[in-house]
Amino acid sequence: MQNFILVPDSFKGTLSAIEVCNIMKSSIKNLYKDANIISVPVADGGEGTVDAFLYALGGEKKSVWVSDAFNEQKILAHYAMLKDDIAVIEMAACAGLPLVKNRLEPDKTTTFGVGELIIDAINSGAKKIILGLGGSATNDGGCGMAAALGVKFKDEQNQEFIPTGGILSQIYKIDMNNIYSKIKDVEFISMCDVDNPLCGKLGASAVFAPQKGADEDMVKLLDEGLAHLAKIIKRDLHIEVKDIKGAGAAGGLGAGSIAFLQSKLTKGIDVILDTIKFDELVSKADIVFTGEGKFDSQSLHGKVVMGVANRSQKYKTPVIVVTGAIGENIQEAYNKGITAIFSINKEPMEFSKSALKSKENMILTMENILRLLKI
Amino acid sequence: MQNFILVPDSFKGTLSAIEVCNIMKSSIKNLYKDANIISVPVADGGEGTVDAFLYALGGEKKSVWVSDAFNEQKILAHYAMLKDDIAVIEMAACAGLPLVKNRLEPDKTTTFGVGELIIDAINSGAKKIILGLGGSATNDGGCGMAAALGVKFKDEQNQEFIPTGGILSQIYKIDMNNIYSKIKDVEFISMCDVDNPLCGKLGASAVFAPQKGADEDMVKLLDEGLAHLAKIIKRDLHIEVKDIKGAGAAGGLGAGSIAFLQSKLTKGIDVILDTIKFDELVSKADIVFTGEGKFDSQSLHGKVVMGVANRSQKYKTPVIVVTGAIGENIQEAYNKGITAIFSINKEPMEFSKSALKSKENMILTMENILRLLKI
Repeated sequence: MQNFILVPDSFKGTLSAIEVCNIMKSSIKNLYKDANIISVPVADGGEGTVDAFLYALGGEKKSVWVSDAFNEQKILAHYAMLKDDIAVIEMAACAGLPLVKNRLEPDKTTTFGVGELIIDAINSGAKKIILGLGGSATNDGGCGMAAALGVKFKDEQNQEFIPTGGILSQIYKIDMNNIYSKIKDVEFISMCDVDNPLCGKLGASAVFAPQKGADEDMVKLLDEGLAHLAKIIKRDLHIEVKDIKGAGAAGGLGAGSIAFLQSKLTKGIDVILDTIKFDELVSKADIVFTGEGKFDSQSLHGKVVMGVANRSQKYKTPVIVVTGAIGENIQEAYNKGITAIFSINKEPMEFSKSALKSKENMILTMENILRLLKI
Repeated sequence: MQNFILVPDSFKGTLSAIEVCNIMKSSIKNLYKDANIISVPVADGGEGTVDAFLYALGGEKKSVWVSDAFNEQKILAHYAMLKDDIAVIEMAACAGLPLVKNRLEPDKTTTFGVGELIIDAINSGAKKIILGLGGSATNDGGCGMAAALGVKFKDEQNQEFIPTGGILSQIYKIDMNNIYSKIKDVEFISMCDVDNPLCGKLGASAVFAPQKGADEDMVKLLDEGLAHLAKIIKRDLHIEVKDIKGAGAAGGLGAGSIAFLQSKLTKGIDVILDTIKFDELVSKADIVFTGEGKFDSQSLHGKVVMGVANRSQKYKTPVIVVTGAIGENIQEAYNKGITAIFSINKEPMEFSKSALKSKENMILTMENILRLLKI
């Protein structure tokens, strides 16, 4: 046993995916001095995505002054430039919900800064941009981002403006002629772990806007705005975004990235596994460790652990799941590429107490799993 | 991986050692169809010892009517006759604390029935008798047992009597001339997991008589009685039992078994491992599973798990500990023959709830350990 791959999700509320990787890596090095370890903390496109990619693949962390979510001042935002000219941008880096603090006005926020990050990445040589959707404070359907890239939004009086969530209905015409020319040479992939469509009951506004501060009336306004945007996009850009799964991610930036960037929407785990060339790695690996906070019957239809298991199974590489809790009815996992599942709980203890011991408990569990593997 | 040995202790309060064996055995058979499994539930000489030996080695369960703890009526008691003419007798089968129920009078109870069980075992062909000390309601130093075997106890008036705990001081003379003659052809081994001497502050009366119903005055009476007995034994039988470790087991039956039966006192786990010829088995085994309710730093100096680990280490056979809880500071175990330790807790949960799930949790844990071993 020499070649290890670690692809854990975070243990929500206790350990980040990077912390899990660190623990696993150090446990392996203790017992397998000559181990080759590839560590890939899983991110879903939200906060931590840039750091996860840098941890897995190395690269440069770039810092740029870009517009904040209200387009009022410049803030310092970060993105990653990996090798092979791949940039990783979190939309939340400049338009994230934590950044607006108590000013919860999703009708007024913009993704303008995201467009500025994209320009900086392209000017730094990015040929491929991974755009993390998640944790947004916005509901502008990506119009702010598009405006930063040179797309012109005009109202009925032919006046150019930057549409935010609350005034999307004023868009009369979208003009793509002046979009930043290098855009077309760049491949875009949006990391998106939700299935929500752009509008309607399951749409961006109804489902996510309330946590961004929208009341019932504002949800209606925002939803009508996005529906209007979809109509204009269809008419002027000839792209139908309304019913695409995930179009509603990040306040409709899912739809905007399709319409304005020709981006693909892809599940976070698949973007990660593809980017690290997981299939090639796993074919040579002796064992894969993955994990998440709780492994239960929902996990069987989940993205991360089963995504890893599914790809590993093709190459008959064993997959060990390490988890904070094993739920009921998980037997099916064993037929789907998972070799064994271990909980880190070393003694009977309620969660409020055991949560404080997650790290030491995982160290102990890893040690015993690895010792068993040595037999 | 084909040859398995299971030597678990009980998980106190949740699973008996036999239940643990059953779970482990069935888990192994599910995944290793051709496995050879030797199952040895650990017993300490107390209740369950007979059943544990029968489970491990097979044999016949014998039933005999013998005197009860008050020598008032006959009760049906059981012992085991194993192959190789080895009998296993629990003293608690006729003189155990649960049998006297609310009648807690350790000054009046007797081990007479134990002597009758011994006679029956000898008459059934036993050449070796394993005597389980533990769970006694008595404090008679084994005088009742001796009396049943033909030893005569006489008072100052040269009147023969059967000494119970409260009247040991009346013993004036012990006459061994009429002891059952076949006794001398039988090898006796007493299973004894306590170190208490016969008398004094750590003696049988001071430490164990209170739970048998003795108040302070009675403890004094009982302790003086055992001290007197030791003196007479020394004078008449030329055996010094007073300070032997374990002489105080089972109300002084430890001392009595030495004095009257020339028995050896041996720790339960060693009796079991010797009887099943563990060293021979483990030299051919691929893996050993052991376990106990809680594995902590005390366990490192404990008898069962470390006893198993110690013997297994000589033959480099891996030992897996399965436990209800892993305590702190157990790293040393890995240097002492233990390969890996797994807790059965599959999720954060306080003991009052998780205790009810011990069986299903152990099944799950065993399955995952065994699946890992298959890699």
